[in-house]
Amino acid sequence: MTKRLTGIAASPGIALAKAFRLNKEQYEPVAVEVADKDQEVLRFSKAVEETKQELEEIKDLTEQRMGAAKAEIFEAHLMLLEDPDYIDAIIDSIKDESMNAEFKLHEVASSFIEVLSSMDNELLRERAADVRDVTGRIMSKLRGVSYAAITAINEPCILIADDLTPSDTAQLNLDYVLGFVTEVGSRTSHSAIMARSLEVPAVVGAGEGVKDIATGTMLILDAVEGVVLVAPSDQEVEAYQTRKQSYDERRAELRKLIHEPTLSADDHRVELAANIGSVEDLQKVLANGAEGIGLFRTEFLYMGRSALPSEEEQFQIYKHVLERMDNKPVVIRTLDIGGDKELPYMKLPVESNPFLGLRAVRLCLSQEDLFRTQLRALLRASSYGQLKIMFPMIAVMDELLAAKQLLQEEKEKLIQEGISVSANIEVGIMIEVPAAAIAADSLAKEADFFSIGTNDLIQYTMAADRMNETVSYLYQPCHPSILRLIQMVIQAASKEGKWVGMCGEMAGDEHAIPILLGMGLHEFSMSASSILPARALIKKTSQQEWAGYTQQILAMSSQAQIKQFVEQKTRSDLA
Amino acid sequence: MTKRLTGIAASPGIALAKAFRLNKEQYEPVAVEVADKDQEVLRFSKAVEETKQELEEIKDLTEQRMGAAKAEIFEAHLMLLEDPDYIDAIIDSIKDESMNAEFKLHEVASSFIEVLSSMDNELLRERAADVRDVTGRIMSKLRGVSYAAITAINEPCILIADDLTPSDTAQLNLDYVLGFVTEVGSRTSHSAIMARSLEVPAVVGAGEGVKDIATGTMLILDAVEGVVLVAPSDQEVEAYQTRKQSYDERRAELRKLIHEPTLSADDHRVELAANIGSVEDLQKVLANGAEGIGLFRTEFLYMGRSALPSEEEQFQIYKHVLERMDNKPVVIRTLDIGGDKELPYMKLPVESNPFLGLRAVRLCLSQEDLFRTQLRALLRASSYGQLKIMFPMIAVMDELLAAKQLLQEEKEKLIQEGISVSANIEVGIMIEVPAAAIAADSLAKEADFFSIGTNDLIQYTMAADRMNETVSYLYQPCHPSILRLIQMVIQAASKEGKWVGMCGEMAGDEHAIPILLGMGLHEFSMSASSILPARALIKKTSQQEWAGYTQQILAMSSQAQIKQFVEQKTRSDLA
Repeated sequence: MTKRLTGIAASPGIALAKAFRLNKEQYEPVAVEVADKDQEVLRFSKAVEETKQELEEIKDLTEQRMGAAKAEIFEAHLMLLEDPDYIDAIIDSIKDESMNAEFKLHEVASSFIEVLSSMDNELLRERAADVRDVTGRIMSKLRGVSYAAITAINEPCILIADDLTPSDTAQLNLDYVLGFVTEVGSRTSHSAIMARSLEVPAVVGAGEGVKDIATGTMLILDAVEGVVLVAPSDQEVEAYQTRKQSYDERRAELRKLIHEPTLSADDHRVELAANIGSVEDLQKVLANGAEGIGLFRTEFLYMGRSALPSEEEQFQIYKHVLERMDNKPVVIRTLDIGGDKELPYMKLPVESNPFLGLRAVRLCLSQEDLFRTQLRALLRASSYGQLKIMFPMIAVMDELLAAKQLLQEEKEKLIQEGISVSANIEVGIMIEVPAAAIAADSLAKEADFFSIGTNDLIQYTMAADRMNETVSYLYQPCHPSILRLIQMVIQAASKEGKWVGMCGEMAGDEHAIPILLGMGLHEFSMSASSILPARALIKKTSQQEWAGYTQQILAMSSQAQIKQFVEQKTRSDLA
Repeated sequence: MTKRLTGIAASPGIALAKAFRLNKEQYEPVAVEVADKDQEVLRFSKAVEETKQELEEIKDLTEQRMGAAKAEIFEAHLMLLEDPDYIDAIIDSIKDESMNAEFKLHEVASSFIEVLSSMDNELLRERAADVRDVTGRIMSKLRGVSYAAITAINEPCILIADDLTPSDTAQLNLDYVLGFVTEVGSRTSHSAIMARSLEVPAVVGAGEGVKDIATGTMLILDAVEGVVLVAPSDQEVEAYQTRKQSYDERRAELRKLIHEPTLSADDHRVELAANIGSVEDLQKVLANGAEGIGLFRTEFLYMGRSALPSEEEQFQIYKHVLERMDNKPVVIRTLDIGGDKELPYMKLPVESNPFLGLRAVRLCLSQEDLFRTQLRALLRASSYGQLKIMFPMIAVMDELLAAKQLLQEEKEKLIQEGISVSANIEVGIMIEVPAAAIAADSLAKEADFFSIGTNDLIQYTMAADRMNETVSYLYQPCHPSILRLIQMVIQAASKEGKWVGMCGEMAGDEHAIPILLGMGLHEFSMSASSILPARALIKKTSQQEWAGYTQQILAMSSQAQIKQFVEQKTRSDLA
């Protein structure tokens, strides 16, 4: 009988092929005293040199296949081979103790990996994986075995492994490797990110069951649903072949839209932007044809560490994002911490209702130093692209004025310090508190743009915690009350000549998109993978036609009624 | 130097007089064997008889001074004197053990008090105080001492005591007792309630410092602010005499309005109703000229006990309230539990954000049995007055339809059972979730009335927990967003010919009242003590004039601006 494994659909797609197990033995060298320590050092240096040549080749290959950015990983690996704390430390250690190279390589690398893994800085922590990868490669040279059998693959297969290193994924021969399944890993692990950038279907974190898959076993990899079928029946294979074909056709169709502008059927132009949570997401944003970043959540910079990030650290990241986006608009949201997102090192008070508490701009205004540091980093980065600064959780005008005042003060200080600051930074606000939506006409006089944060706006308007399952029935993006608020916001902003975006999940919702287009929303910001489907939907939708439906929709009394109306109309559009 | 004590202003007013300490010794009788037990029984019966006569006199006195309702307490005391579990149990015990009456009275009464105190039923728990009072009275007869020196007062004074029993307060000679101060007690303790009904200024729970006040010490009792000045300076006395005079004049002015209808300066009629939390509040409601009950919170029925209240228990209470209100409108809100109000015996899930969780009608719809019991009790009581049923926390139409459906089903069942149900019960909803305010036009087609619950509406619209001090700056009743929502609700209801009330604190706010009057709010429901000041304010305010200001006010951008406008206009109204 078919065995089903479920995991995380890390990179979408469907593949049918035999399994190929990537065996990566855990080699634990034993300590051996060597007679000639200089000879041993020479043996080690030769292995390092061979590794260097191999990495140069992989780097070139990667650059051809995946672009210069992805090849940077191997540049980092090459630099490791010159690192005195690593290579020289091993050589010294062999000399001092007359020990075998394998043992010393393992010993020094292990302690190096351990130190890096415990770092607060995320980038340094990631270096640990690089050291592990390079160490494995040198070790295989020392032992005269091949580092991984991955290059030996010569027929179509689905790769099976406990996990894949960056260099594993870089060496994948995509003519043969149709997808991969790993035992461990998450949506944000290296292998998952690489899979998405290579566009290889991948299910990661599929669990212990992965160990039992032998090379040669027939597999169906459904990386749309996050399922792996081991030894499927003929009927299953047939069904999935059909499914794969229509998936691939749809995907090919969507890919044609990557470099197209977002135009409705009647040539109304809107902007499709992406929400990102970290620098890691940028590759996918560009690969999916985003016209900008509509929401850069800066929380990740503050989380999973033991102290606040410095101004310089923040500046480097904002600068990097702006440069990578190559003068496309980038909306960076100031810290939205508090509520459900806590920072252990900040010792925030425990609140009975954190979603209704001291969070986001409320917290920033009460902790000015923290806020000013972020504002300075943003201002300094502003010369490197098209930065727009956005304040979250604004409820009343006074908060907006106070936040703008601090921004202005830091800007003046920087200019006095001779640091260049862009003269064209738009300063906008999230509309996620009902009070702000209702008073959008006033706020539009002081904000350069609005971005409607529907996740919170719905939660507050319905008075229903979106994380609480017992009241999840009230999370209704297309409820008339929500749509009315959105229309109020768009009208208020338009009156003042300001643009309105949306950066909640609703912006990518197929029921909502035609309505929002009709209401005149200017920017839709969503997860990168939703962009091409949204562009395809907008392409088929007439803005004028849907503008004509707005009043009719807003007069309805339930979400069910509105969804039904949208389904009926879009079906007839296709007919 | 003047000593200041602070406590709870249980009954407002200002008094200046010397202290009179009410000494109530704790008498602990010792057990003594008696030679002639029949003689001892006779002695006890005589004491009971004397107590009976005394109570009859106090009862008559109370009826004259405070009305028949308040005299009922002494009817209860008299009935205790006939209670076999009490009096007969003592007599039997004296006979059985040949013990002295004092000891046996103390012993039996103590265990009786203990049993009653541990009862779930609030009414039974209150009986414990009655037993204590009657016991003290019989004891003083047995001992040949006067029960309390309270009747001996023959010059103006402020009474000082650890606490006052109902019979203490009933015996107060108001020609001489100008106010009282107690060491213990809360706003809802017997003495506080009696003080309000007698309209004697009282500060309760003033703490240990009360012990140090000797009879004859000069006192200033400021029961507006909840402060007692012990041995004040001449300047303080002078200042408070002026303050007392203007307070008393204002109060006398207000009292003239008790039986007047609520009319604006231009004869626009609105209804001033009271919010109540228990049956105890009714006296005050009537004493302050409420034209109805705008909000009867039924939570108290469910709280401080170990199981749900039965249908019969609820019916008795609803019936009592309807009867006491003598066919004036009574809006009873169905259970609003969950959120911050928990019921230990219901084992509700712990929620991360209880204010955004499974509360009020959401909980009732998920626990139908609980809800149906309350609906049946309400329907059965409906024949005894002008009942209006109100559902709290309605966010979407489906919830209203579901609640109405259950009500209809129970109504039909009762009619089939031959139980009479009023044909004219209005069924309305609280408007406290922003979504409901925004979709009020739809909801007005299904609800007979709206009552705007501003405490929650403000909290959700501002996304700020009203109990959380760090965000309390966002609790802004007169913020333009709040006022706009209120206007939407009033307009939506008026279009369907439905009335709109308000039962949050805002309804009694002097800045809000002129605006709300101008917007056309039909009913203002508030704590009883706010009713007469509100009536006085409305009397001076022109509805037409304020209707003319509405658009101007709604276009303002902050609460500060709006409050300033109101102050300026009301000042010029008075000029």
